[in-house]
Amino acid sequence: MKPIDPQTISELLDYLRQQKPLVHHITNYVTVNDCANITLAIGASPVMADDIDEVCDIVSIAQSEVINMGTLNARTIASMIATGKKANELGKPIVFDPVGAGASSLRNQTAHKLINEVKFNVIRGNLSEILFIAGLGATTKGVDVSETDLQQSSSDTAHQTARSLAKKLGCVIAITGAVDTISDGTRTFCIENGHKMLGAITGTGCMCTSLIGSANGATTDSLLGACAGVLFMGLAGELAFEKVGHMGSGSLHISLIDQIYNLNAEIIQKRAKIYEV
Amino acid sequence: MKPIDPQTISELLDYLRQQKPLVHHITNYVTVNDCANITLAIGASPVMADDIDEVCDIVSIAQSEVINMGTLNARTIASMIATGKKANELGKPIVFDPVGAGASSLRNQTAHKLINEVKFNVIRGNLSEILFIAGLGATTKGVDVSETDLQQSSSDTAHQTARSLAKKLGCVIAITGAVDTISDGTRTFCIENGHKMLGAITGTGCMCTSLIGSANGATTDSLLGACAGVLFMGLAGELAFEKVGHMGSGSLHISLIDQIYNLNAEIIQKRAKIYEV
Amino acid sequence: MKPIDPQTISELLDYLRQQKPLVHHITNYVTVNDCANITLAIGASPVMADDIDEVCDIVSIAQSEVINMGTLNARTIASMIATGKKANELGKPIVFDPVGAGASSLRNQTAHKLINEVKFNVIRGNLSEILFIAGLGATTKGVDVSETDLQQSSSDTAHQTARSLAKKLGCVIAITGAVDTISDGTRTFCIENGHKMLGAITGTGCMCTSLIGSANGATTDSLLGACAGVLFMGLAGELAFEKVGHMGSGSLHISLIDQIYNLNAEIIQKRAKIYEV
Repeated sequence: MKPIDPQTISELLDYLRQQKPLVHHITNYVTVNDCANITLAIGASPVMADDIDEVCDIVSIAQSEVINMGTLNARTIASMIATGKKANELGKPIVFDPVGAGASSLRNQTAHKLINEVKFNVIRGNLSEILFIAGLGATTKGVDVSETDLQQSSSDTAHQTARSLAKKLGCVIAITGAVDTISDGTRTFCIENGHKMLGAITGTGCMCTSLIGSANGATTDSLLGACAGVLFMGLAGELAFEKVGHMGSGSLHISLIDQIYNLNAEIIQKRAKIYEV
Repeated sequence: MKPIDPQTISELLDYLRQQKPLVHHITNYVTVNDCANITLAIGASPVMADDIDEVCDIVSIAQSEVINMGTLNARTIASMIATGKKANELGKPIVFDPVGAGASSLRNQTAHKLINEVKFNVIRGNLSEILFIAGLGATTKGVDVSETDLQQSSSDTAHQTARSLAKKLGCVIAITGAVDTISDGTRTFCIENGHKMLGAITGTGCMCTSLIGSANGATTDSLLGACAGVLFMGLAGELAFEKVGHMGSGSLHISLIDQIYNLNAEIIQKRAKIYEV
Repeated sequence: MKPIDPQTISELLDYLRQQKPLVHHITNYVTVNDCANITLAIGASPVMADDIDEVCDIVSIAQSEVINMGTLNARTIASMIATGKKANELGKPIVFDPVGAGASSLRNQTAHKLINEVKFNVIRGNLSEILFIAGLGATTKGVDVSETDLQQSSSDTAHQTARSLAKKLGCVIAITGAVDTISDGTRTFCIENGHKMLGAITGTGCMCTSLIGSANGATTDSLLGACAGVLFMGLAGELAFEKVGHMGSGSLHISLIDQIYNLNAEIIQKRAKIYEV
C-alpha cells in the first residue's frame, strides 16, 4: 500500500494526464458545464449522458462513473440505478454525490435506493448530507453548504461518521468543508486546503466529485483517488482566491478552472496540507 | 409603508445577507447556472429542483420561489403549477418570469394557466412578454429582448400596462428594458440603471428575476423586493460594463456576478436612479 | 456563385449583425449556455426550446435551426425529428451536430434516423463522428475530440469522407479539428485557424455548430455559412489563446465569447487561413 501524500498524489496527477480517463457523469443541469470543464482541466475526458437506453453503453467505454443527484427526476433516477449496476458488474470505479440528501423525501429515498442497489467506491458530500446517509439525521438546508457544515467538516463527529459509514458501506467517505475528512474506515485523512469564499459559487461540491471521479479513473486505490480529488479542489480554491478573490465570485468561478488546468507537482508539494488522523 | 429609495433598498440588502434566504427555482437549463450563482452572489441560497415528487417538500423549506418558463415541458409545467399552489398555501412569496410568452401556443397557454391557478407576488418580463400577459398582443421574437422592447420599457404604454395589469392580477409587475418600470397598481417606479450591452448576454432577465426572488425572500413588501432586484441588476450591469465592457460579452457576463457579489450600500446610495412616476 | 474568401465572409458577418437572425436550438444541457452566448456574441439571437408541443411554432419564427444531440433522450429525439421535418417543410436552413455518434447504439440510431428523415443543410462533427455517419466506422471515445481526430481532420481521409458524404446526403459536411475540412461535394475548403488548447474546453464543437447555424440564418449559401461559422470559431480560438491562454482553460472559455463579440472584417482579412483544396 502506497502512502497517501503529496508525492503519491502528484504521481497520480501525472498518470491521469497521460491516461486521460473517460469519466461518465449522470449529473444535474445546474453545474454540468463546470463539471465537464473541470474534468477536462484536470486532464480527464467527460461524457454526460443520462438516457436509460444509452447509459450502459457509455459506462462500458468509460474508465469511471460519477452519479450526482443534484436535479434528479424519475427518468434520471432509473438511469442512475442502471448505470450503477452496470459499473459494478464491469468493476468500474463509481463515485456518488448525494446532493441535498435530507432536503426532500425523493432525495432521501433515492439516496437510500442507490446505496442499497449500487456498491460505490466513494461517496462525497457535505456534513449534513453524509450525516443523513449515515442515518444520523441532520438539518439540510437546500443544496449549498451551510455554515455549520463548513465549520464541523473535520470535527470529531465528522471523523467518526466518515469512519463508521465507510466501514458499514465498504466504501470511501469524503466529507468536504472548511477542513475535509476522507476515510475508508481504516485510514482517515484531513485536508486543510481551500478557501471559504468557494461557498459563494454553486457547484464546488459537484466539481470536487468530478475531480474524485477523474482521479479514480486513473487508480484502483479509491482512498487515494478520493484524497487526490479533494486536494485538487482545495488547492485550486485557495490559489483562485489569492489571484482573483478581490474581484468577486464570478471571477473566482472561472479562476478555479484555470488553477486546475495549471495544477502541477510543484504546487502540490509546496501547498498540500494533508495528514492522517 | 416605508419609502422605496436607495436607503431602504440598502437596508434590505443588508438584511438579505444576514438572513440568507433559500430561494427555490424551477427554471430553464440555459441560464440556470447563472441564476444559481447570482443568487449566491447577492447573499441568498439557491435550490433548483423540478420533479413533481419533491417540489412541494422544497418550497416548504424555502423562503421564496421563482418560476421561470424558459425551457418548459409537460413534466416541468406540472411541477410549476404544483409548486405555485403550495407556495400560495404556505404564504411564500413567488415570482414568475414568463420567458418568451407570445412565442408559442405552449408558452401562451402555460403563462395563462399559471396566472389563473397561482397568485404571484411579482411577474417580471420584457415589454413584449408583459403585453402578452396583459392580453394586449405583441410581437415576441424568441426569448431575448428586442430593440423595441428595450426602447419602450418605460414608455407611457409600459407605465399604463404595468399599472393596469398589476391592479388586475393583484401583484407587482416589473417591465425591464433600457429603463425599467415597476408597479403594484398604485405606486409605479422607474429605474434608469443598467447598460444596453447586457442585451448581448443570455439570461440577464432570468438573473434579474432570481434577484427579485432573493430580495422577496427577505421582505414581505413585494414592490420593494421587486424594485430592489431590478436595481441590483441595473447597478451590476453598468458597473460591469464600465470595468470590462471593452473586453467583450464573455467578460461582461462574469463581471456581472462579481459586481453583484461586491454590491453595497455605498454603491447603491451613489448610483441608484430610482424614482416614482 | 460568390467566391468563399475572407471578403465574402466579412460581408456575411456584417449582414448577419444587421439581420440578427433568430436561431432555434434543440441542444444539450451541458453547453447550452455557451451556445446561447456565442450566438448572441456573433450578432444573432438564440432561442432554446425542446418540447414537442412548441418546437414547430418556434422553428416557424426562426431563421435557422440547430439540432445537437449531445444529451439526447426519448423526449427530445421526437422533438428533433418533428422540428427537422418542419424546418424542411418551411425551407429553413438546418444544421446537425451528431455529438458522440459512434459512442452508443442510441446515438447511432438517432443520427441515422435524423439523417433519413430530415434533409440537413450542414452536418458538423469531428472526424470520428463524421466517419461514423458515413458508415465507415471509427473509434469514438465519448463526446470530446480525440488526438487522432485533431490530427487527421484535414487528412486525405477527411477530404474524401467530407466530399463523398456531402454528395451522398446532398448537404455540406464540416469536419473540424486541427485543420478543418468543409465540403459540399463539389468544392472543398480547408481552414487553418484555431488552437489546440480549445480541446481543453467542453462545447467548442457545439459552439462552432451554433455559429454555423447563425451564419446560415443570414445566407442561403450553406457552404458559405458553414465556412463562415467554422472560421469564426477558429479565429476566436487563436485570438483567445493569444490573449489569455497562459491563464488557463477557464479564462480561455470566457475569452472565446469575447473574441466572437469583437470579431470584425479587419481581423478576418488579416488572419483568415481559408483555401480551396
